[in-house]
Amino acid sequence: MFDEIQTPAVLVDIDVAKRNIERFQAYANSHGLKVRPHIKTHKLPAIAEMQIEAGAIGITCQKVSEAEAMIAGSDRLTDVLITYNILGEAKLKALLALSAKVRLSVVADNAPVIDGLSAAFSAAGTTLHVLVECNTGADRCGVGTPQEAATLAARIAAAPGLAFGGLMTYPPVGGAAKVQAFMSEAKALIEAKGIAVPTITSGGSPDMMSAHEAAIVTEHRPGTYVYNDRSLVARGVASWDDCALTVLATVVSVPAPDRAIIDAGSKTLTSDLLGLTGHGHVLGRPDIAIDQLSEEHGRLRSEGDIGLQVGQRLRIVPNHACVVTNMVDAVHIVGKDRAPEVWPVPARGKII
Amino acid sequence: MFDEIQTPAVLVDIDVAKRNIERFQAYANSHGLKVRPHIKTHKLPAIAEMQIEAGAIGITCQKVSEAEAMIAGSDRLTDVLITYNILGEAKLKALLALSAKVRLSVVADNAPVIDGLSAAFSAAGTTLHVLVECNTGADRCGVGTPQEAATLAARIAAAPGLAFGGLMTYPPVGGAAKVQAFMSEAKALIEAKGIAVPTITSGGSPDMMSAHEAAIVTEHRPGTYVYNDRSLVARGVASWDDCALTVLATVVSVPAPDRAIIDAGSKTLTSDLLGLTGHGHVLGRPDIAIDQLSEEHGRLRSEGDIGLQVGQRLRIVPNHACVVTNMVDAVHIVGKDRAPEVWPVPARGKII
Repeated sequence: MFDEIQTPAVLVDIDVAKRNIERFQAYANSHGLKVRPHIKTHKLPAIAEMQIEAGAIGITCQKVSEAEAMIAGSDRLTDVLITYNILGEAKLKALLALSAKVRLSVVADNAPVIDGLSAAFSAAGTTLHVLVECNTGADRCGVGTPQEAATLAARIAAAPGLAFGGLMTYPPVGGAAKVQAFMSEAKALIEAKGIAVPTITSGGSPDMMSAHEAAIVTEHRPGTYVYNDRSLVARGVASWDDCALTVLATVVSVPAPDRAIIDAGSKTLTSDLLGLTGHGHVLGRPDIAIDQLSEEHGRLRSEGDIGLQVGQRLRIVPNHACVVTNMVDAVHIVGKDRAPEVWPVPARGKII
Repeated sequence: MFDEIQTPAVLVDIDVAKRNIERFQAYANSHGLKVRPHIKTHKLPAIAEMQIEAGAIGITCQKVSEAEAMIAGSDRLTDVLITYNILGEAKLKALLALSAKVRLSVVADNAPVIDGLSAAFSAAGTTLHVLVECNTGADRCGVGTPQEAATLAARIAAAPGLAFGGLMTYPPVGGAAKVQAFMSEAKALIEAKGIAVPTITSGGSPDMMSAHEAAIVTEHRPGTYVYNDRSLVARGVASWDDCALTVLATVVSVPAPDRAIIDAGSKTLTSDLLGLTGHGHVLGRPDIAIDQLSEEHGRLRSEGDIGLQVGQRLRIVPNHACVVTNMVDAVHIVGKDRAPEVWPVPARGKII
């Protein structure tokens, strides 16, 4: 059924994606946890709609332009959280326009960002929900202590044009205890100021099936779970059968008995390693290593004879699904009872 | 002058690019070497035209769709080499259409590819130039011995619809002696069959200023040289002032004294390391390491106080310029005596 598809191509098995969505939603429902999937993995309004249909309360985007593309692509995405510090006149203007269309929230971890948001939204006479981003060990963005979180919460609550939306974190893998401790203390400090904490939102796919262990969390934002990838299989939280996204590639050269070259390189698979060795898993050929990528070539190695022919097609599970989605203008949707379809990826390349 | 540009953004200093183009062209001219730049680095017809204007005899593309985009973007790109094994009906049809517009050459390193090209071009009653790709140590594509090269050259020369175009290699850094030995032997073997070897083409930017050391080579295909990048500075063949492509980013968070976060992550800088540690060079701040990228965040670290403010803008030289070009729909062209201009990147994402 893939014979007509030119390679390299990104395939998405929509049945597998649906099963992945429903599995986590069922888990979250059983623990009273709200689900707000991060769309970075699929960048497709139609899959976001599947997530909403399954029970998600809204979506997460990382950049303003990503939210714009998703909202433009579906009128069913009415509750959007942008988990980013937003700065600068042009982006604030874009944010204002979005806030007229959907229930919009953003995060902030510093006073200049809060003050900029407040100036823009108060001038427009409207209100933006702002959550405080907290660092629970990933050492990316986020305030470092519950005390700082409380200080920023009070600043948001007092700022014209803003409403305090709660606390947000993107924790490291295995960070449940740290999340529970940080958020409990921050919540108590904020409530002691007479400010309610409506939402405590955490994220990540690797730990999502134990998200309930940080009991204070009210909402989870998984991204990769919808497709899964080699990194999640390596962590033991998904099987190859759970991987909805694969790269279809053609063997273009077998220049040595133990070496073959495919037409997918870093422009498709990307150089993301996520701590792994090699650049993907060839389905059905666990003996093959993808040991080198250049932009348009992937090099496959085997211990003995590689047993591949020029022209043969392979399906590869990439190390990291989200970044592969970002490399292509369109994906090929496949599934059991349907002909393959080409879907454009509206939120690809939305870095602003 | 960059204040109006939303970040993250890819900037190209067109004056620096022009200087880089002219420097290599002058070197090549002084050695009687033809220049056929690889457009993968800029993916911009207008810069390819600058390369032709400086004296290049044509361009190199890696994929058929890349060649399509370049040719559609300029009527001055009339000689195109696609350095790839091309397989499959749809791609052969596209190749035929291109060959009606420009002088087109491709490469092959195996019989199935040659036979496919021959079937398509002989059926159309037209002729395609095919070079034999040789492995001179990079262990990607390419026949492994001069004898195999001669066998394939004869197959091409005898194939209806094809003309033997010569020999091609993408050598490893420091591979001049190997190139000279392999190509000399292959050329002699092919000429002994009564077949002329019109072109011997080699590539790569790191060694380009000593390309004459493999004296048998008639043509060089540098790519990265037009922009340069951190990998070439690390190799000592370019300075920061020679780097035409930079990423403009904004500091969005300074969550700890020794840590700052910028709004450019792997969706802009990519995860390409090219053997380096860290993900780019912050211009003017050699003390800062970009020690981690996630999709939309870059993490900056310093030994002592990082001394950055939220909202501050930085310019970053990426590890690998070519892959950064591929991440954006448009680049911002800057230069001494001109206002910044936005140029779309027509050959971005052309993986087919």
